[in-house]
Amino acid sequence: MTAAAVLGAGSWGTAFAKVLADAGNDVTIWARREAVAAAIREYGANPDYLPAVRLPERVTATSDAGKAIGGADLVVLAVPSQTLRGNLAEWAAFVEPGATLISLMKGIELGTTKRMSEVIVETAGVPADRVAVISGPNLAAEIAAEQPAATVVACTDPGRAALVQRAVTTPYFRPYTNEDVVGCELGGAVKNVIALAYGIATAMRLGDNTKATLITRGWPRPHAWAWRWGPTR
Amino acid sequence: MTAAAVLGAGSWGTAFAKVLADAGNDVTIWARREAVAAAIREYGANPDYLPAVRLPERVTATSDAGKAIGGADLVVLAVPSQTLRGNLAEWAAFVEPGATLISLMKGIELGTTKRMSEVIVETAGVPADRVAVISGPNLAAEIAAEQPAATVVACTDPGRAALVQRAVTTPYFRPYTNEDVVGCELGGAVKNVIALAYGIATAMRLGDNTKATLITRGWPRPHAWAWRWGPTR
Repeated sequence: MTAAAVLGAGSWGTAFAKVLADAGNDVTIWARREAVAAAIREYGANPDYLPAVRLPERVTATSDAGKAIGGADLVVLAVPSQTLRGNLAEWAAFVEPGATLISLMKGIELGTTKRMSEVIVETAGVPADRVAVISGPNLAAEIAAEQPAATVVACTDPGRAALVQRAVTTPYFRPYTNEDVVGCELGGAVKNVIALAYGIATAMRLGDNTKATLITRGWPRPHAWAWRWGPTR
Repeated sequence: MTAAAVLGAGSWGTAFAKVLADAGNDVTIWARREAVAAAIREYGANPDYLPAVRLPERVTATSDAGKAIGGADLVVLAVPSQTLRGNLAEWAAFVEPGATLISLMKGIELGTTKRMSEVIVETAGVPADRVAVISGPNLAAEIAAEQPAATVVACTDPGRAALVQRAVTTPYFRPYTNEDVVGCELGGAVKNVIALAYGIATAMRLGDNTKATLITRGWPRPHAWAWRWGPTR
């Protein structure tokens, strides 16, 4: 049995706590506001995000981050990207020596242009191979509704990636492992450029051919970097 | 200036004739029925398919296949898959020695389970490196409306693939080249399994996570062949 802390009670943190509990872990959510933590403890639901979703019995909550993190084998970071460094500086002392830190966060730190896993390594003072990133087509409400979804667990240490994979596998949540942490983190950000182009194409009333072309050929790779209207291999 | 024959006056043959003409080729469409050929000659539109699309001046039509094929550098095959062998047996004698045969057809020949390019090689008696396959997210009506689309030109001879690429590039139609003829032809058929699963997911009211997972992980590769609900790299 694994103890997991989920730091952040937004919609993805809340849905991910349910995944962890459904996978057999004991989960403590940290909420910034004690009222949210108390509601989760008392009613088994987060009043602010996904209020209709009943959280499993194995989920509890606290507004004391030290209590959530102490004793946790998995420390899941689900706070707003730009607050990570400040929060984690306060929390680092509570992280257990063998714990795995898992980032659910998207985005790049303003000012430093660092990826979230880089901020974790720096701020928590852990080696990079103790940090895993989870990223995929994972809309929180659909996960909470137990609709089938795949995801990627990326870690430079494949053994730790497999450990996290086992810890978050449920009948509706299917993680794949990967060693490309940089690709996973940047992919989650860069794909929004394609999403914008897709939205523009939709508004221009362009059809399936154009959208399929954007999705197939829009990803960052040599073809795309050299995108221009002319012959291309 | 290149002369092209398009064999088959269905919607894709008709739209592709427009692409060829817009790319600067002189095009002759072969229609099975003389009435269709006459309407194309007289009114510059195909009365049966895409009737609202004005074909360029460089497009003409005939119901005499020998007249279309004789002198053509590019012989584009756009007949129903299961009629290819019978038709091409009659037409083979008219194909010029240096001509490139281009398949727009999808599917596998019933009885022989041969790919369309294999039927072409056998029936026209040409080497495989003279046959190119064009396949992509290419809904004919959208191409005819000049909406941007990419496609793939596959040929075992990369030089010939590049030649076809140049011959069919327009401001709205962007061909990429590839040497994997087998993958292109089978991909065009196998993707329909994923399309069916996507339709089933839609009818089951499953959301974007599930659909993204189907599209990302559904393609034929080792991951997918081993699909089952359990840890997977």
